Amino acid sequence: MQSSFQTVYWKNRQVVMLDQRLLPYEEKYNRYSTVQEVADAIQTMVVRGAPAIGVAAAFGVALAAIEADGNEERLLALCDVLAATRPTAVNLFWAIERMKKRISTHGTAPQEVLEEAERIKEEDIAACKKMGEFGEKFIKDGATVLTHCNAGALATAGWGTALGVFRSAVAAGKTIHVLADETRPRLQGAKLTAWELRKDGIDVTVISDNAAASLLRAGKIDAVVVGSDRIAANGDVCNKIGTYSVALAADAAGVPFYVAAPVSTIDMSCPSGDQIPIEEREADEVTHINGVQILPDGVPVKNPAFDVTPHTLVTAIFTEVGVFQKNYSESLKKILQP
Amino acid sequence: MQSSFQTVYWKNRQVVMLDQRLLPYEEKYNRYSTVQEVADAIQTMVVRGAPAIGVAAAFGVALAAIEADGNEERLLALCDVLAATRPTAVNLFWAIERMKKRISTHGTAPQEVLEEAERIKEEDIAACKKMGEFGEKFIKDGATVLTHCNAGALATAGWGTALGVFRSAVAAGKTIHVLADETRPRLQGAKLTAWELRKDGIDVTVISDNAAASLLRAGKIDAVVVGSDRIAANGDVCNKIGTYSVALAADAAGVPFYVAAPVSTIDMSCPSGDQIPIEEREADEVTHINGVQILPDGVPVKNPAFDVTPHTLVTAIFTEVGVFQKNYSESLKKILQP
Repeated sequence: MQSSFQTVYWKNRQVVMLDQRLLPYEEKYNRYSTVQEVADAIQTMVVRGAPAIGVAAAFGVALAAIEADGNEERLLALCDVLAATRPTAVNLFWAIERMKKRISTHGTAPQEVLEEAERIKEEDIAACKKMGEFGEKFIKDGATVLTHCNAGALATAGWGTALGVFRSAVAAGKTIHVLADETRPRLQGAKLTAWELRKDGIDVTVISDNAAASLLRAGKIDAVVVGSDRIAANGDVCNKIGTYSVALAADAAGVPFYVAAPVSTIDMSCPSGDQIPIEEREADEVTHINGVQILPDGVPVKNPAFDVTPHTLVTAIFTEVGVFQKNYSESLKKILQP
Repeated sequence: MQSSFQTVYWKNRQVVMLDQRLLPYEEKYNRYSTVQEVADAIQTMVVRGAPAIGVAAAFGVALAAIEADGNEERLLALCDVLAATRPTAVNLFWAIERMKKRISTHGTAPQEVLEEAERIKEEDIAACKKMGEFGEKFIKDGATVLTHCNAGALATAGWGTALGVFRSAVAAGKTIHVLADETRPRLQGAKLTAWELRKDGIDVTVISDNAAASLLRAGKIDAVVVGSDRIAANGDVCNKIGTYSVALAADAAGVPFYVAAPVSTIDMSCPSGDQIPIEEREADEVTHINGVQILPDGVPVKNPAFDVTPHTLVTAIFTEVGVFQKNYSESLKKILQP
């Protein structure tokens, strides 16, 4: 079983990305031939989701190797152009650092650089499948599962993190029913999660974010699985705004709340969620939907893009190296501390 | 101080309603000359908000008295048409019952019937002001307060319930900052609460529903005040979908969660929230925003319109006869049991 689409890939000396801004209306693949074009695509959210951004940037470095034509200084400067696209995506910096390291040991030859980018992509898919296999054991056959935002194949090089767990459950022969929070303000659940699960034939129903708590309270949901943008050393989980609400409601209902994320998401240098900076995004994400204004003129908006779910509400964290459970300060340190 | 607009009123043998579906884009008043038109207007949410629905239905009965032309049986049948419009708001049934009772004691003369409807309207405004005076004492000068949906002048005959508390705080000379949840799927917070508070010069900022919990957790909100569509005898509060999420987050943050509602909202015949029927509304409220489709074709939707907040999460209930606090089963019974 594979996802029936590709998020980002390399073909004929070009980086190809599925333009996620057009989903679910149109499945259009954009081709980029220059580093600047790739940087713009990341910045304008043609591609989004921390692991997918990392892979896109790695392919951007492969383009940079062609553009730099053996000039290492110029190649590293082009890496910095890619690194300046998004401030918070940890995987962006991680992927670029890894590419730079490879260049420093193996040189600037475009084919060498491209091979490292392809490895990052393949490893990302493999990590998703591994965490999916670990995680799907926690999902019962016939379960109704809730997710928030899009932690899917679209947010990774393929398979997905939270949605990877669902794909792995289906691959293991289980029947599952996915409820997707629409995820205001950017509606990634309504637009992306619904699109990719439907495309892969996985049963999905969309609800407004407001409906999640009462469905949990009514016993209609068996488990929650979400992704993460950063996990602190104590197990606090930073993820798309609204995740914390879902975690509170799951806890009140006695429903397990799982997080699926690659180990690269766990930031052992960050003691708790309090140290994670929360990006405040543009007001027009709230004031407008698909270009249509929904607020009266001139009404101000607060638009934090992420929130922190305290570790006390997290039942388990699925990663490619295994499943972490409480007490996270101990369990994460045991495996991940250098 | 008055609201600078009218929600529903009687003029020249017609029921006039501000068409709330057009806000905040247009302030248009619709005129209805038949019971069926009024029933359709309630059902299609030209008017919404439990107390406003009650007042609209009472004026609908006044139209029915004209249509029935002295035939009491026909008049009562027309009342049933009005009662069949919305299932959850108890004020609808309360208002119609009161009109029927008046008809049974004072007859079917249209002028008599209209006078009772006008009394319901005036009493509703007076009740809002009274509960506002009780409630505003719980709001500190300089406070940031959060509300969900629209429990405003637009949801009542005037002044509002939750927003009435804010108006009364301002009338008492306090400075307050209102955060309004946008309230998907119908966006009553973004469209109506923002519109009416801005129109009356009260400071308002809109947030996506997903942002409320993290702002509460961050200590940025001093109190939550919401309205209600039905309160059970044990103090369980039925209100717009998403209210329960806010209550959970307020509880977790140690922030008081207040409900403002007229006594007519309290249904002593309903032992707990479990007995309150929850209206499931059309999928297109979720699939489309302002006529623009946001979901992929054919993806199903669940769209419950209300949820129940258990009484354990409710700090106090503001009514026109006073403030109720825990234990609600006792405090409500003492005042309201016949």
